Amino acid sequence: MVVEYALIVAGGQGTRMGTRTPKQFLELKGVPVLVHTVRAFLRYSGYIRIILVLPSAEIKTWQKLAAKYSLPAVILQSGGDTRFQSVKRGLEMIKEEGLVAIHDGVRPLISEDIIAASFRLAAVHGSAVASVRLKESVRMVDQHGTRALDRSQYRLIQTPQTFKTSIIRKAYELPEEPSLTDDASVAERAGHKISLFEGSYRNIKITDREDLNVAEGLMSTVEIKKG
Amino acid sequence: MVVEYALIVAGGQGTRMGTRTPKQFLELKGVPVLVHTVRAFLRYSGYIRIILVLPSAEIKTWQKLAAKYSLPAVILQSGGDTRFQSVKRGLEMIKEEGLVAIHDGVRPLISEDIIAASFRLAAVHGSAVASVRLKESVRMVDQHGTRALDRSQYRLIQTPQTFKTSIIRKAYELPEEPSLTDDASVAERAGHKISLFEGSYRNIKITDREDLNVAEGLMSTVEIKKG
Repeated sequence: MVVEYALIVAGGQGTRMGTRTPKQFLELKGVPVLVHTVRAFLRYSGYIRIILVLPSAEIKTWQKLAAKYSLPAVILQSGGDTRFQSVKRGLEMIKEEGLVAIHDGVRPLISEDIIAASFRLAAVHGSAVASVRLKESVRMVDQHGTRALDRSQYRLIQTPQTFKTSIIRKAYELPEEPSLTDDASVAERAGHKISLFEGSYRNIKITDREDLNVAEGLMSTVEIKKG
Repeated sequence: MVVEYALIVAGGQGTRMGTRTPKQFLELKGVPVLVHTVRAFLRYSGYIRIILVLPSAEIKTWQKLAAKYSLPAVILQSGGDTRFQSVKRGLEMIKEEGLVAIHDGVRPLISEDIIAASFRLAAVHGSAVASVRLKESVRMVDQHGTRALDRSQYRLIQTPQTFKTSIIRKAYELPEEPSLTDDASVAERAGHKISLFEGSYRNIKITDREDLNVAEGLMSTVEIKKG
């Protein structure tokens, strides 16, 4: 059986919310965001190897939370100055070839179905990147002004972004560049074709207090399968 | 003083939510979505002329709600088969030159600030279309696959889309086409330059039950000014 890793990136020290608590530790329905995220991967599989990348100052915070919520041990790694560096450091903890789902620690509403689909598809295609269609019209803006685009040709990108470990580890040997905003762009720059699959509008990223309330709203809805 | 109209489009009979109630009448914190929307425009100005486009079968529903919630009289118009036709029919109710803010009836969280900005900017530029930056990476998809884009060059489009009445009424004389997905694209096709301005992530469109819960979550947050 193929070895499956989850690389959960929670390297941010960001306190954009105006609190002193990094956003991955803010509470959603009384439980820290990052605990929700880790639990989602544990619900998917009891065999998954979880690599958790945290700011070095927060590793102890996690250890206390893991004890409090009776979470199994995960592989801990301290983050770098940027998301790119944090992922790269996390990938260094992979010891066996297999698949790795790279996921934002602040996307706590990820479902087991999407995690499962990402591993299944990445095993076939080398990559599987969660994405959603645009619900709204989209326009391009540049120095000449703005123009309407055909929204059916665009996708918003989420995580998990799942890869064969050999592909993504090699890709992260590239030098860091500002245009490499996610793992898919890193793999693409290294010459790999990216496969997208259908994520979920529920799988939001918590970046501010408003997002926390949105997430609470979503948690009170049973997931509707959109057709 | 320039005459200001709000053309609120609630022509949809859609029951995508699996209920028999059209989505503009579903309740958000105990009050129908469309009542929230109309109230937002009334909070902005006591002088605004509101044109409400509804399916003809729902005009009575509205009249009962207006009585129940003590709302002032608005100009009622029955909708067409498509959003394009509904807006066109609504524009026919404009009797004086001025400005018109075209707004989705199912965007109840619109703020007075954004309405005000749209009228102020449209008076200067001819158009003012609410838009937000992308929070996530964006990719293009076509028959050859997918590729990363620079998300800073894209905007998601909301309403209000506010115009000088002369510009938008003339633009709606164009034949309807599937590519004309919003009022901005209609005005653009007629040869007008579109001006965008900063909307809000709170200004969501209610299209399903999940969105209702998200809206409730947002309503429990005081708006955060993003810097």
